[in-house]
Amino acid sequence: MSVRAAVVAVPSGLPARVATPVPGDPRLARLSLNQRTTARWTLRQAIDGAVAAGLGAIGLWREPVADVGMQVAAAWVSAAGLRVSSLCRGGFFTASDPVARADALASNRAAIEEAAALRAGTLVLVPGGLPPGDRDLAGARARAVDAIAELVPYARERGVRLGIEPMNPIYAADRGVVSTLTQALDIAEQFPPDAVGVIVDTFHLWWEPGVGEQLRRAGERILSYQICDWITPLPADTLLARGMMGDGHIDFAEFTRAVAAAGYRGDVEVEIFNADVWAAPPEQVVATMARRYVELVERYL
Amino acid sequence: MSVRAAVVAVPSGLPARVATPVPGDPRLARLSLNQRTTARWTLRQAIDGAVAAGLGAIGLWREPVADVGMQVAAAWVSAAGLRVSSLCRGGFFTASDPVARADALASNRAAIEEAAALRAGTLVLVPGGLPPGDRDLAGARARAVDAIAELVPYARERGVRLGIEPMNPIYAADRGVVSTLTQALDIAEQFPPDAVGVIVDTFHLWWEPGVGEQLRRAGERILSYQICDWITPLPADTLLARGMMGDGHIDFAEFTRAVAAAGYRGDVEVEIFNADVWAAPPEQVVATMARRYVELVERYL
Repeated sequence: MSVRAAVVAVPSGLPARVATPVPGDPRLARLSLNQRTTARWTLRQAIDGAVAAGLGAIGLWREPVADVGMQVAAAWVSAAGLRVSSLCRGGFFTASDPVARADALASNRAAIEEAAALRAGTLVLVPGGLPPGDRDLAGARARAVDAIAELVPYARERGVRLGIEPMNPIYAADRGVVSTLTQALDIAEQFPPDAVGVIVDTFHLWWEPGVGEQLRRAGERILSYQICDWITPLPADTLLARGMMGDGHIDFAEFTRAVAAAGYRGDVEVEIFNADVWAAPPEQVVATMARRYVELVERYL
Repeated sequence: MSVRAAVVAVPSGLPARVATPVPGDPRLARLSLNQRTTARWTLRQAIDGAVAAGLGAIGLWREPVADVGMQVAAAWVSAAGLRVSSLCRGGFFTASDPVARADALASNRAAIEEAAALRAGTLVLVPGGLPPGDRDLAGARARAVDAIAELVPYARERGVRLGIEPMNPIYAADRGVVSTLTQALDIAEQFPPDAVGVIVDTFHLWWEPGVGEQLRRAGERILSYQICDWITPLPADTLLARGMMGDGHIDFAEFTRAVAAAGYRGDVEVEIFNADVWAAPPEQVVATMARRYVELVERYL
């Protein structure tokens, strides 16, 4: 695998080039490969790919973990010496139907147990959208808060922190009714900091007026810093609208400085849902993300 | 033209049907046809279509007005007995290049003159996005504020109010760097209420946490209430992602009550950018929007 291979040429206007990172480069110590960035890879391949590229951590998803079994997954990650920066994902608990709601809570309890077994520390909560045919956004938001309140004791007993992920309003109807960092913090602050925090993802939050101030407010509640770019025109499938850092409009220097100033010292996860990225050889994707991370993000941490 | 014809069947879950409006129905007095909803129609056709449907107002765009000339357009609208609920659009003044910036300001001054001649009262300001290759969102936002400050005296002298349109964050990079009603009001309140207000569009603002409170805050600064729905999945071209009221996820009862409670007594403009709507016979589109307006919006005003 050549770490010099690039999926996408570096656009003009980026900072002066830095030395291309090679495996073992200490600048990659906090970089984490979210499994969805290399969606074609199995868990085994993703672990090996992250290790080969010299990354310090991996962000796991429940489905590929389930494919091999939780104990096997935990043993693999541990033996590879990788941290599990987060487990994706819990949440989707906005249903008003009592049966659907009970199912969602049960699924979230299972996710908490998996996070604990994997030593993930943080379970990412994607709140979910409006129930089908339901236009009561305030109601869906209130049910998300109620669900978090119900899960907090269960998570604390197992040493797992719940990370509320505010999502770009593009997903407010069908994926995430928590739309801003401000709103996520208004919810998180109803609970102890060791129980509930927030997931800070540049794609979701780059546009938020006053986001720098909200990052300062978040402080220790920032449980994960996730990065990818906002690209235009948006791909037809908006779920796959995320771009490689540097390909879009986000000022990663400014955003990363604010995350660092808030005291964040954790891993930096690259999570890219994008058909072109998924079609590229995963090794090249990892090499590109490592290089872009060093050029655009790591120096500002 | 049959006002009973419908482009889209009324979805289930809507309020009980009300009597279908017919031309002359007083419930249509505040309804305004934004020209972009019937993009195929010329200005003459749009005026005739609005009158035939019994609407009280029309929302004009500069380009079709220019096609016939400002004086002719003004005379036609006046003779038709329609109010001009707004003129679209000024703005797009985020350029950092001095020449581009001067061009944008000159274009906005011309738009202000046109709004005055058309007795539009309100000029809609779409701020514009990031300049090409520029990632400084805070800078672009600051330049938008500066441009408004520069235009205010010119607009006041001509009796035209400037309406800042906060836009869904989906457009933050390429169309509108003002992303929330909160942010738009933070800008507008730097100027007298008779000079600068806000455009409230359900598509752009339906997801904003605390939007009800911000509408109360806005009060007399609400210069136009524009309606269309947020539909999923989003069409491939996000610029054409707007849906007919009732086809999507927005609770028009809740939103409209908040607009009315804020004291808004003006026209309600239907502005729908949508390829399917544009492909339908414009008379049917107007009939459908009139029916949906009466069913979903007018009763809550």
